[in-house]
Amino acid sequence: MQALFLIGAGLMGSSFALAAKRAGAFARVIGYDVDARAAARARDKGVLDETVADIASGARDCAAVAVAVPPQAIAPSVVAALRALDGRPAPIFDLGSVKAPVIEALSRLLGSVPAQFVPCHPLAGRELRGADAADATLFVGRRVFVTPVAATAPDALASVIRWWRGCGADVQVVTAAEHDAAVAATSHLPHLLASSYVATLAGRVAALQGFTGPGFRDFTRIAASDPELWRQILLENRVNLGADLAALIDALARVRDGLAAGDDAALRHVLERGREAKERFRDGGG
Amino acid sequence: MQALFLIGAGLMGSSFALAAKRAGAFARVIGYDVDARAAARARDKGVLDETVADIASGARDCAAVAVAVPPQAIAPSVVAALRALDGRPAPIFDLGSVKAPVIEALSRLLGSVPAQFVPCHPLAGRELRGADAADATLFVGRRVFVTPVAATAPDALASVIRWWRGCGADVQVVTAAEHDAAVAATSHLPHLLASSYVATLAGRVAALQGFTGPGFRDFTRIAASDPELWRQILLENRVNLGADLAALIDALARVRDGLAAGDDAALRHVLERGREAKERFRDGGG
Repeated sequence: MQALFLIGAGLMGSSFALAAKRAGAFARVIGYDVDARAAARARDKGVLDETVADIASGARDCAAVAVAVPPQAIAPSVVAALRALDGRPAPIFDLGSVKAPVIEALSRLLGSVPAQFVPCHPLAGRELRGADAADATLFVGRRVFVTPVAATAPDALASVIRWWRGCGADVQVVTAAEHDAAVAATSHLPHLLASSYVATLAGRVAALQGFTGPGFRDFTRIAASDPELWRQILLENRVNLGADLAALIDALARVRDGLAAGDDAALRHVLERGREAKERFRDGGG
Repeated sequence: MQALFLIGAGLMGSSFALAAKRAGAFARVIGYDVDARAAARARDKGVLDETVADIASGARDCAAVAVAVPPQAIAPSVVAALRALDGRPAPIFDLGSVKAPVIEALSRLLGSVPAQFVPCHPLAGRELRGADAADATLFVGRRVFVTPVAATAPDALASVIRWWRGCGADVQVVTAAEHDAAVAATSHLPHLLASSYVATLAGRVAALQGFTGPGFRDFTRIAASDPELWRQILLENRVNLGADLAALIDALARVRDGLAAGDDAALRHVLERGREAKERFRDGGG
């Protein structure tokens, strides 16, 4: 068993490091974070066995590279790791929420997508941040999407899938385009809606505080997520997200206009169709 | 201890009946439901000790009347109970989600709001329906709003508050106008958003089924609620709801336009302001 090199010692990367070590996929984890204090904290917590000061130092002797950084930092980190690997075919995989832009960025930066790069997206998370919140069971029973391209090396793909399964994840291989369109609808739009909704209440928190119940808490839970991380995610997926958002605004505007005119047809439509769709999602495990 | 007369043997009324009997507030519960099978089911489940075929029969010997019916049926039920009480000052209270319209309807039907009527709204519920889902602990630790008017009899008010506290509820006395404006923002708008959101996905359930996680489940939980009940609730509160909905649509439209133009200022605004407001709600127990 060899070393994993983890770029980014946040919640997701630290949780993967703990889970993969526990599964015996790697003997040790070397870590780098652009914030040296975050890396030191992950080492102190036992997430990392060793920290390094730059990507070149960490990639030198590793068997694999996990890139667990915000969306806009993924492609540059992959490029830096590739340079340090200097031809060695160690698998490199990311954990970003949007897949096509990373693939496109690498293709643009390198001329083609590297065979050893395996794009991944674990559908897991917590509202907490950093290695302090790391959890070796974060991926147990959770879906991890893997979106290889034609150039992806089959052995790199197989290794990465095996590591995720070792962490207890339910791995699904899909195309990046299918993935990005789907998560725009099921994850990115709800995040935007929850945040926008709570944002419109910002001036009334004191007055409304006593009027919130469990429904409010569940509905707004995702609004507690890191704004900068989600800004990058939503921007990267803005074409898919924009289309879904426009459709939703149209539906809401029909309800608004109906309510103003005393016509409940649009209201009835969304309530009945929403409940019917919710039941079908539930039947399928959603 | 005397009898409670329950009009409406659904989830809320049945749960109150169980909780109030357990607390010793009433020795027995007589029940009426417009759906005779629902009443019989509640009797078979031990929620009701006796069922009656009409409101007049049930109100005759009771010490209090709980009106747990959909919004548009509340005022007519209260009027029928008053007629049957024939001058007896037994407290009558409802459990509806919108308060000013009930008060206004009674004032319109009767010339003034009856002194023995105490408007209530327990902020509790489940996505399940009927006496089968009744739960004697449904109100434990949950907020119950009581919205008396100038005409409300102090002894009726005190009795109703005592019964709710006996069920474990945290009673808050507020004005109907304050209540309706607040729950439009904290409860009715989220219901409408969750339903509208899931409704726009109705044609894509099969394709999206595998891409949903815990965030999706929490965000859409309230979309499973009874469409006809919520149609009435949202319509009754349409003035407050319409204003909040319009403000939200404006915020979403700014994000949509920004995304289309590659400008993330509106996106950043809702993410940052949403998280900041969410933290303040949490600090206050929301």
